[in-house]
This record gives sequence, structure tokens and C-alpha cells, in this order.
Amino acid sequence: MSGNTFGRLFTVTTFGESHGPALGAVIDGCPPGLAIDETDLQRDLDRRKPGTSRHTSQRREGDEVRILSGVFEGRTTGAPIGLLIENMDQRSKDYSAISELFRPGHADYTYWQKYGIRDYRGGGRSSARETAVRVAAGAIARRYLHARLGIEIRGWLSQLGSIELSLEDWASVDDNPFFCGEPGRLPELEAYMDDLRKSGDSVGASVGVLARNVPPGLGEPVFDRLDADIAHALMSINAVRGVEIGDGFASAAQKGTEHRDEMTPEGFLSNHAGGTLGGISTGQDVVARMALKPTSSIRLPGQSVDIHGQPQEVVTTGRHDPCVGIRATPIAEAMLALVLVDHYLRHRGQNADVDSGTPVIPAQPGG
Amino acid sequence: MSGNTFGRLFTVTTFGESHGPALGAVIDGCPPGLAIDETDLQRDLDRRKPGTSRHTSQRREGDEVRILSGVFEGRTTGAPIGLLIENMDQRSKDYSAISELFRPGHADYTYWQKYGIRDYRGGGRSSARETAVRVAAGAIARRYLHARLGIEIRGWLSQLGSIELSLEDWASVDDNPFFCGEPGRLPELEAYMDDLRKSGDSVGASVGVLARNVPPGLGEPVFDRLDADIAHALMSINAVRGVEIGDGFASAAQKGTEHRDEMTPEGFLSNHAGGTLGGISTGQDVVARMALKPTSSIRLPGQSVDIHGQPQEVVTTGRHDPCVGIRATPIAEAMLALVLVDHYLRHRGQNADVDSGTPVIPAQPGG
Amino acid sequence: MSGNTFGRLFTVTTFGESHGPALGAVIDGCPPGLAIDETDLQRDLDRRKPGTSRHTSQRREGDEVRILSGVFEGRTTGAPIGLLIENMDQRSKDYSAISELFRPGHADYTYWQKYGIRDYRGGGRSSARETAVRVAAGAIARRYLHARLGIEIRGWLSQLGSIELSLEDWASVDDNPFFCGEPGRLPELEAYMDDLRKSGDSVGASVGVLARNVPPGLGEPVFDRLDADIAHALMSINAVRGVEIGDGFASAAQKGTEHRDEMTPEGFLSNHAGGTLGGISTGQDVVARMALKPTSSIRLPGQSVDIHGQPQEVVTTGRHDPCVGIRATPIAEAMLALVLVDHYLRHRGQNADVDSGTPVIPAQPGG
Amino acid sequence: MSGNTFGRLFTVTTFGESHGPALGAVIDGCPPGLAIDETDLQRDLDRRKPGTSRHTSQRREGDEVRILSGVFEGRTTGAPIGLLIENMDQRSKDYSAISELFRPGHADYTYWQKYGIRDYRGGGRSSARETAVRVAAGAIARRYLHARLGIEIRGWLSQLGSIELSLEDWASVDDNPFFCGEPGRLPELEAYMDDLRKSGDSVGASVGVLARNVPPGLGEPVFDRLDADIAHALMSINAVRGVEIGDGFASAAQKGTEHRDEMTPEGFLSNHAGGTLGGISTGQDVVARMALKPTSSIRLPGQSVDIHGQPQEVVTTGRHDPCVGIRATPIAEAMLALVLVDHYLRHRGQNADVDSGTPVIPAQPGG
Repeated sequence: MSGNTFGRLFTVTTFGESHGPALGAVIDGCPPGLAIDETDLQRDLDRRKPGTSRHTSQRREGDEVRILSGVFEGRTTGAPIGLLIENMDQRSKDYSAISELFRPGHADYTYWQKYGIRDYRGGGRSSARETAVRVAAGAIARRYLHARLGIEIRGWLSQLGSIELSLEDWASVDDNPFFCGEPGRLPELEAYMDDLRKSGDSVGASVGVLARNVPPGLGEPVFDRLDADIAHALMSINAVRGVEIGDGFASAAQKGTEHRDEMTPEGFLSNHAGGTLGGISTGQDVVARMALKPTSSIRLPGQSVDIHGQPQEVVTTGRHDPCVGIRATPIAEAMLALVLVDHYLRHRGQNADVDSGTPVIPAQPGG
Repeated sequence: MSGNTFGRLFTVTTFGESHGPALGAVIDGCPPGLAIDETDLQRDLDRRKPGTSRHTSQRREGDEVRILSGVFEGRTTGAPIGLLIENMDQRSKDYSAISELFRPGHADYTYWQKYGIRDYRGGGRSSARETAVRVAAGAIARRYLHARLGIEIRGWLSQLGSIELSLEDWASVDDNPFFCGEPGRLPELEAYMDDLRKSGDSVGASVGVLARNVPPGLGEPVFDRLDADIAHALMSINAVRGVEIGDGFASAAQKGTEHRDEMTPEGFLSNHAGGTLGGISTGQDVVARMALKPTSSIRLPGQSVDIHGQPQEVVTTGRHDPCVGIRATPIAEAMLALVLVDHYLRHRGQNADVDSGTPVIPAQPGG
Repeated sequence: MSGNTFGRLFTVTTFGESHGPALGAVIDGCPPGLAIDETDLQRDLDRRKPGTSRHTSQRREGDEVRILSGVFEGRTTGAPIGLLIENMDQRSKDYSAISELFRPGHADYTYWQKYGIRDYRGGGRSSARETAVRVAAGAIARRYLHARLGIEIRGWLSQLGSIELSLEDWASVDDNPFFCGEPGRLPELEAYMDDLRKSGDSVGASVGVLARNVPPGLGEPVFDRLDADIAHALMSINAVRGVEIGDGFASAAQKGTEHRDEMTPEGFLSNHAGGTLGGISTGQDVVARMALKPTSSIRLPGQSVDIHGQPQEVVTTGRHDPCVGIRATPIAEAMLALVLVDHYLRHRGQNADVDSGTPVIPAQPGG
Repeated sequence: MSGNTFGRLFTVTTFGESHGPALGAVIDGCPPGLAIDETDLQRDLDRRKPGTSRHTSQRREGDEVRILSGVFEGRTTGAPIGLLIENMDQRSKDYSAISELFRPGHADYTYWQKYGIRDYRGGGRSSARETAVRVAAGAIARRYLHARLGIEIRGWLSQLGSIELSLEDWASVDDNPFFCGEPGRLPELEAYMDDLRKSGDSVGASVGVLARNVPPGLGEPVFDRLDADIAHALMSINAVRGVEIGDGFASAAQKGTEHRDEMTPEGFLSNHAGGTLGGISTGQDVVARMALKPTSSIRLPGQSVDIHGQPQEVVTTGRHDPCVGIRATPIAEAMLALVLVDHYLRHRGQNADVDSGTPVIPAQPGG
């Protein structure tokens, strides 16, 4: 309840700092009987982990996850699932130079103001390293959603700096370190990143995420709408500055006749809504997009101050992602999975008396 | 906890349908000793209420709010504050024609799928009429924030269909029915809306909202970040499809050197971050923007189905806003106030031991 | 979340003071489709209301409840249910004499210390009058539990001062103003109360409460155990000072061979556990008991102080129950119903994948 | 939110089974700046751990706790504190004989009915071993309460089977394995336990717990009263069947003149209330008592059934406490500390505007 727990019935509580001994998570409320083991979680963790290409941080972390509880003879028991990932490749001394400095655009300053104390090693709790355990928790949620409802969740890089990318080929997304769904444009991305690295600067990005086979009925108006909870979930990812559902910001310029998704006995004719109406899933694909700002930790000098308010020039060394958006795709998938599983359990708790049966119309053709 | 409560320490629970006897809210956790009466709430309610210009719904509601509890001799007591607004101008018979139909782009369909029963009169619980009591609750939050911290919150219409609008003149926003901050462009907006009404169509919009004098330190990483909770709050408003903080989606194309807000002993040099870093307020203005889709209830016929899955052509009569974004400004202000007050109380509960004293740097010049 | 909401999935938020304009409650999370109207709630309210015999407070309140939302054409819709009871018979001037005094044993002092302000009229928020809306909310929970699971809930007066009472005849409990299940002892109770009233003193009591047909499996270890939540619920009732489940305090002196409920294919052989093991329901009757202290508002003078710390002799006039335990039975039933419905929904949300089917053994013979 | 988290602002989430690899807890919301290290936690853990006398379970566990996060350079940072205790002395094969049996009076049966799967090794999640991490978390809470408010918390064994014990000598409680406050009666207790062990039976107990120097004003009416939350907390401890505050069940037979604690400018004249009025602390000692049932795992044969509903005779081997109440004292202290710290933070969050200053009267002489 104090900021490090996500969800209501299927909850995830995370702990751990970038350069502490370990990161961990507790998943509480996972239904019993789900077949699961560490390799299921490792697959998603490996997609997020640093050091897998020259375009991301060169920190080497195995990100090996251990399940400490809640699984017995290969199946979940209904008890809380404890997860642990030990940190291996901390180089805390990289950070001693900035122990009293604030990097511009970084959480350094706000943690100091809020807590009066700051674990400056690698960003401490504010580091995106915390998202490793979100990905592990999300893997459990995905597995449950798939086993129970056939839900598939997929993210992709939709923008890298000024380069916009579409999702041409769902299957190719996992074949490249960018999570790019337009395989023909990989050379362009690689060249862009090589130039960026040389310049010492960083760049923003945007990531799309989509869930297929979501049943209609998930989401709790008026405050815990499905879309509001997705917005909360995605905006809670480090560096995210904007979230949209379906047509998102483009809706502001649309007419009603253009935006509304017409319905026929054969299904919806379009999906401008991104799979939610009134905060409840329609049965169509749930589609969201998020924008990430450029990393603040860069080699190019910037004006700042120290903890005494004195002016300082700051240059960040250490190992950082020049574009945090690249590794954000598995995190977005994980967060979407966590929102969906929580809403599915809530919906089932409150509305299992409703004989929902077959939806009135199928999601297709526009689904 | 089941969708109709917002906040953790300063909570708002709303109830009521568009065409039921009344709407209400319970505010729990408001600090004691705050001077308040109905007129304080009425001011904001009057800004939101329908029927005040030809550009919004012609439903006539006094939106008179009664305080039923929690205030004694003009001051809050720490007990829950019950608010009640009776509905006066329901015309439920307008809706009998659609009792078995789903309007495309409307929550009709998802409520039916979720609950198996639907109060079709005026949209029932899915109606934006519910936001009246949010505005009343938000007025209490604003009053507290202003009395205690000097915080001021202001929203404005930042886009009407294809027309983009800036905030030129803060003072003029409340002088026109559009909450437009560019007074010189009012004739353009009026002509646009008159044409739209004639066409029978509706249009989207976007609204900006800003809080000044927010102290540094508000927000609880990692999930209950200030920005994540703002995203949740704004996305929970009817018709909202996108939310951004600070530079938002534009950040995706920015370089690190461009986005980061440099710091000097005199203050921040810019505010691309929109007042939060790492999910915690910096002391600068908190700035957010939201996009609203066009109303789905329009006179132009559309394809749809009925509850039996049979094809139907739908035409919506009744009294609707051709642009729900116009009346959304006070709602956005209310939701931002509710987020801020809740985070202030949480922060104070957990961090009152920290002698925060003077912030390390002032918010200015970029604040 | 700030003290006036009970439950997680089926939540009840109450508001209102003893001498304010009205009391109210919002029930959020009630499953849709439940047939309900005001008369269902009124039945339980009438059992609790004051002035029905000479043994309780002579305040005359109709306690008429209005349903303001969440019910459409006689059935719940899944939307929050707003309830309102207007106060009719306030005599606030009875209290002006104690506006600056603290009654010994009363919440006067602690409200003043906590909030720095106090609605002294009739105890304000600390009055047991608040429980009227709990009873109304509990009536909805009971109705759902009965319709869905056949659960029956019944309370009885198990002790009045030094008089201990058993539950001989379930059917007779509602036929007398004491909720006494030993009809032959009513004259004894009446004489006791008549003497008590004459003396100007008050007395404590204890109340038992029992739920039949509770399915096995309800309760969430380790903190939200069914028994822990019952303890919380009953202890939240005004004047309650002790709670026990099953054999309760007597268990402390028992041997393991004596306390354990042996099991046979035909059912449990006893019910010392009171229907829960490990915090989860067994399928046997859930049995709890609570002790209530004597009313602090009495005519006999006592030493106290005023808000300035000056010594004062206090005598309480006004209309008070000489034994608050007498009217507490319907409140205990309501709270038990609220705990059970919340746990049923939580259980269903998380464990609907489990094919629980028939319990391994029936609750009988010991059930 | 799914049963394994306790508290609202200072939350504790626990995980781990009796015979799994480890137990753990996450404390979220601990204020920053508190000096703490593992030895502070170890002291309380050592008081609870098994194998320290012949009167408790002979399982040998070091119960060594590691702090994985949230502490930097010896002080809490405001980030979540991860705690880990590895299990060392599991003998899971002791349990293979009961893998399909239900022990009468044990959670075996209810876990099976609820989850459809059961980690039978040592009771799995239902084992009191889980309370080790509660004690560790409670140690942090105690340390904070003491550093900030001077609060001291102490428990004692108040009943062992039929032997009732008073708190004669606060200082002696920690000098004996029974947490007995009447040192002269230790030989009686030892003889009683030796006989009990020989008989193969188990016995119940009761434990008292007390907090000194609690400021007035803690507790949130109407549902989250301090006493209601204490009842919840204590009843959530394994084997607890009853909880009382102050005079508790004895209040039922008291008169108002007897129970009410009169007040003078020098302080309260008595403390029948146990330190709370209207659910809010008075400033007097907070006093509670809990009753624990006898252990169900005993060597004496009993009737039961297996998971197929077939009759079976059950005899429990393995290492068990013949009286779980003996080791329960540090757990009760931990839970009381967790309730108090959570309410202190909540109170501070909502009521810091109140200039509480000096209480109107001191807690003495009756404090």
C-alpha cells in the first residue's frame, strides 16, 4: 500500500536496489494449480536483461530467478510466491563521484528531497533494474492468462527517436534486440544507435503493447477502469511520460462518426477504442502505447547542483542504456499482463453469478 | 476497493446514476479543522454543470450539493464527509427506444457483457453525470491544498477537434464556456461548434491541467508514482484516451541533452519533466494533458446490434454534449487535486521525520 | 481506506453523525442481479432501532432507509448502492451542557485529542447510531449469501450482566426485545433491567452469532483469515471489548485431545473450532461471541475533566441505552454477513479454477 | 491485498513455507532515517526460535535474517525492506505419512478444500514457522516506535493450561523460556510441561501484551479502530481463538460505574478500557490478551479421514510444540508493534495539522 505493491487480488510487491545484494518480488493471489517453474520466468527475464547487444547497457547480469515459495511439485499452491534475483555485476565505485551530485533529469534530486537520504549507487531504488522482477512476476501472470483464457500479449518498439515503426510482422519482434516488428528497417536502427552512442547523447522512444483474446467484461468503473489501470501500470515504468489507449491522442481531432466502432452480428468493424468502452473490455484487442523520455545519465556535461545547492557540472560515466525504450518492451508486456490478471480475478469474484456465456458479438472482423 | 473509490488516505467513493434519484460521494480522510461550506463546492460544480451555454448538453440541473456529515460549525471534523446532489431533470423516456440497443462506441455493450443487466436511462452509471460529485469532492481537496500549501490548480482547453489552443492568459480561462485561455480565438471556437451541432456529429478535444506550488517530495515509487497516479486519475474520466506528463509523447523524439532540465542554484532552467522525476514531485509546476474522444451519442445513424445480436441502425436522440471535452476541464482539475492531496497525506505520514526544510533549489526560473 | 470502509471486494463505506441530517452507506462490489428492495433492509433495521421497548433508548427514529442507486427494476446492477437514513428525532440541546466536558469511559476525550474538534451532539460520529447503516448494508449481504449459498445467520444475547443465557430455541430469539433464546427467562431479564434503570447505572453484555451453511474454503491466510476478519468486524462495533471464535478463551485450559474436532466420513464429531481451521472455513457452523462493556453515559455522577483540564463532576442526561448489548445482536449479524460475503467473493475470484465440488466430508454430525 | 499483507501505510508482506527453501518479508512504508541492522532483528528472532528449551519444538533453526534492501549505510532509506530467513533443518520425510491424511484440528483439511492442492511438509504455509518473519518485521516497527515515541512493548504468558499467571515482574519475563512474569512459579510450569510431554498431549495457553507510552489519538473509527485492528492482528496468529482489550470479557458482567475510568487533572484513575476509547488510544497503556488453543499435532491417535473421505486413524510424529502458546509471546509483541506503527503513520498523515501538543491529562496515575 505504500507504493511498492501493484494490484488488488493478484498483487506484486517488489523490493531491491540496483546495487544491493538482491532484487525480489512477492506475488500474492495467484490462483492455485498453475504449472510453473523457473524456466518459464527466465524466458521473459532474458528478453529484458542488459548486455545482450551493443545497443544496451553493458552491465552483465545473469538475472537468474529463484522461486522461494508458493510452488509445490511444479504447481502453484495459492500461497504467496517469493522470487529472488541476486545482483552479480555491481560496480558501485562508478558512482562515488556523484554521491553528492544530482544528475539533471534524474530521480537523484527528488529522492533526496523526499527521503533525506539516498542510495546513490546505480540509482538505488529508482533504477530500472527494479523492473527485472516485474518481468518475472508478469511472466506468471501471462502464463495464467494464457492457460486459462488463451490471452496472448505482445509488445513492439513503435518509435526510436524520430524513426516511427509499425508492427508489420508480429513473429519477427523477438528476433532482434530492438523488439522491432519491421525487420527490413533493422539496419537503419542499428546505424542510428551507433551514431547516438558515438555522440554521447541518449534518445527517447515509444513502445506499443497489445493483448489478444481478452474476454469482454474486464474493468471496474468508475475509477478502476481497465484503461485507467493500464495507464497507471505503464506510467509506473521508469522514464514513461505518456500513455494512450486505442487511437489515443489522435482521438482529440476525430469526429464521432470517425471514432465510433460500428458493430455488426459478425463483430466490430474497427477498433479505434483500443478494446475498452466505459473502462470495460469489449473483447477486441486491448491496444496501448507509451512514450519514454531519453535517459538522463549521459556523458555530455550538464549544469546541476550538489546536495548543498552549489553549482556543479555533471558528466555521467557508468554503464547506461542510451535508449531505455529498447529494453522497455518486455516490461510493458509484463505490466499489461498484471493489469489483466488482476481485473480477471476481480471480475470473476464479483460477477461469477452472471452467465456471461458467449459474447453478444465476436471481436472480429475488426478485432 | 471495487472500483468506485479513489485514493488511499484521502479517499472519495462515489455512487449514483444519471437518471436515478441522486448522486453522492463520501470523502474519507479529510484532515480536521478545514473551514468549508456548500458554497465552496458549488463554485466548481457550477463551472461543470450542463446547460450553461448552447455548446453543451441542454439538460438543466441545478447541481445543488448538500453536505450531510463531517462538517461541524463550519469546519471539517475528521469524520467522513457525505455529499448529495439530487437529480432534477431526468427525461428517462428519451431512452426507452435504446433499452435493448447498443450505441456504437458507448459503454452500453460492455456494461451488458459485464453485469448482464443495464440501467439504460441516460447511460446509468457510465454517464459523465457521475463526475459532478467528483468535482464537489475535488473542491474540498483544492481548498485544503490551497489553505495548507498554497497550491493552485488550473485547467484549460488545449485542443478542440483540429484547433489547437495555448494557455496565453490564465485569468481568462474561466470567463468563457470553453475554458479557453486564448480569448481572441473564441469566435473561431463558437463558429466551429455551431457548424458541428448542425452536422449532428461530435468531436474530440484535449485538456491541459497544471498545479503550482506543489512541494518537492510527493509521490511513492515504484508503482504509486505521482505521475502514474495522475495518469490513472485522468484516464478514469469518461472519454479520456490518452494522458501525458510534461513533454509527454514529444519526449520519444527528444535527445537527452534536449529533455533534461538543467539545475542551477537559482532553480531549474526548464520544465520538460512536467514537475516529476522518478515519480516524485520536483517543486516545479506539475503539468499534464489528456485527450478525449468524441461523444458516441450522436444523431447520425450508425450500424449496431441489439442485445440479441441482431443488426440495428442506431440514432441517438436525448440531450448530449457534442464535445464532452468542453466540460471536462473542471473534472481534470478535481482529479489532479485528489491525487495531490492523497499523496501529500501519504508523504506526511511516512516522511514527517525528515526535516525537509527549504528545498535545495527553488522551482524558478523554469518553474 | 481511512477507517470508514469495511471489506475488500464487497465494501461498505459509512458516513453520518448521531445528530446530523442523515446517516448513509455506500455498498460497492455487490454482485449484479440480486433481487432487493427497501423492505428487505427495513426488516433488519427495525430489529435494531431504538424505542421499541422500555429497555432501550427512548429516542424515536423511524430509521427509514432509501436506496439511492445501484438497483434498477428491483435488481442490483453491479453499480455502487447508496443508502440514506435521515435523522428525525435529534434533541441536540440535551448535549450543550457537555460540550466542553469529557464523559468518563466515553470517546469524547479521544476524539478531542485526535481531531482537535468534536461534534458533541449525541456523540457525533462515535455514537452507535452509525451502526444503523451497517445493519442496512448487512441486510444486503445476508440476502445475497442466502440466495446464493443458503447461508443463514443468527445472533442471540448470551449474557446480560451476570446472567448467562444459552441458545435453547433459535426461533424465539426474534420474539422478544432482548434477542434472548431462552424464552422462559424473559421475566428475569425484565426484572433485572427494571432494577438497573431505577439505579441509574448501566451494565455489560455478551452476544453470540452463528452462520450456518458456510461452504468450506472461505478465508485468506495468513493475515486475512476468516477468524481474524471476524474479530476485526465484531471489535469494530461500539463498546465491544472481547471476541472469541468457537471455544475461545476456554481453549486456553483445554488439552489437544479435548479441543481437536475429530473427523469421520459422516462429518465432524464436534465443533470446538467454531467453524475455522487455519483461518479458513471448515463447512461447520461459524460461531463467534463478543463482549460489550456497560454504557458510559449514565446518570450517576463521576469524576472527569473539561477540555481545559479542569476537574468536573459529570452526570449524563439525554436518552441512552442502559445496556448497549441488547440492541447489538442485529449489528453482530450484519458484521458477520459482511465478512462472509467479502470472503466468498475473494475466494471465488482467486480459486474459481479449483473444482471444489462436494466437500470431502459433510459438516454433520457435529456441524 | 490477498491475505499475506498486513497494514496500510507501514505494510508487511510475508511469504514462505515451513519446509521450503526460505521465509521472507517485505516491509513497505518504514520511514527513512531509522538506524537499524540485522542484530536488532536477531534479538527478537532468537526469543521466538525453536529448540531453545526442552519445552518447545526440537527443530534446530538458526533463524538468521538477512536484510536485502531498504537499508543504506545503516539507515532505512524509505525503500521497501526485504528480509530473508533460510530454512536449515527441514525433515520433510517426517511428513510423507500424512501427505494424504488430514490431522483433526489442523489446517490440513481447509487448505485442501480451498486450494485443491497442499504442501503437506510441516504444514506448509499454515505452519507457525511463518511467524518468524513477522517477528523480524515487528522488530523494525518496535525500534521505530521506541526511537520516535519512546513506546515500549512487552508480552507475557498469562495462562498455561489451567495455570493462571500474573505479571509480577516485568524484568523477569525474558529470563525464562516461558515468558513468565512470576519467577517463583517456574518450577510449577516446568513440572507441568514435563508431565504433558510424557502424556503425548498438548495444551492451550493465553498471552498478555502491553504497550506503554502510546500517545493519545491513534486509531481510525469506525472500522479501523485501534482495538479492532489489534483484535485482527492477534487473531491472525496461529492457534489464537480469542482476543480481549482491557477488561475484555469481564466487562460483560460489570456495571457502568465499575467499568468507566474516571479522569482527574492528574490522570485517569483506572484502566479498565485497556487504553482505547471509541477505538482511539487514550494515552494509557494499551493492554490486550489472547487465548491460544492446544496444538493439533499430537502423538495420541485420533479419528480422521484421508483426501478420499476414507476413515483413518491419525498419529502425528515430527517435532511439534506441546504448547504453541509458549513461543507466542514475541509474536504478539510483534503484531502489536505493527498495529501501532501503522496507526501512528496514518494518524500523522491525516491529522498533522492538529496541534496536539500536550495531552489534556496525563496517563497517570492509572496509566
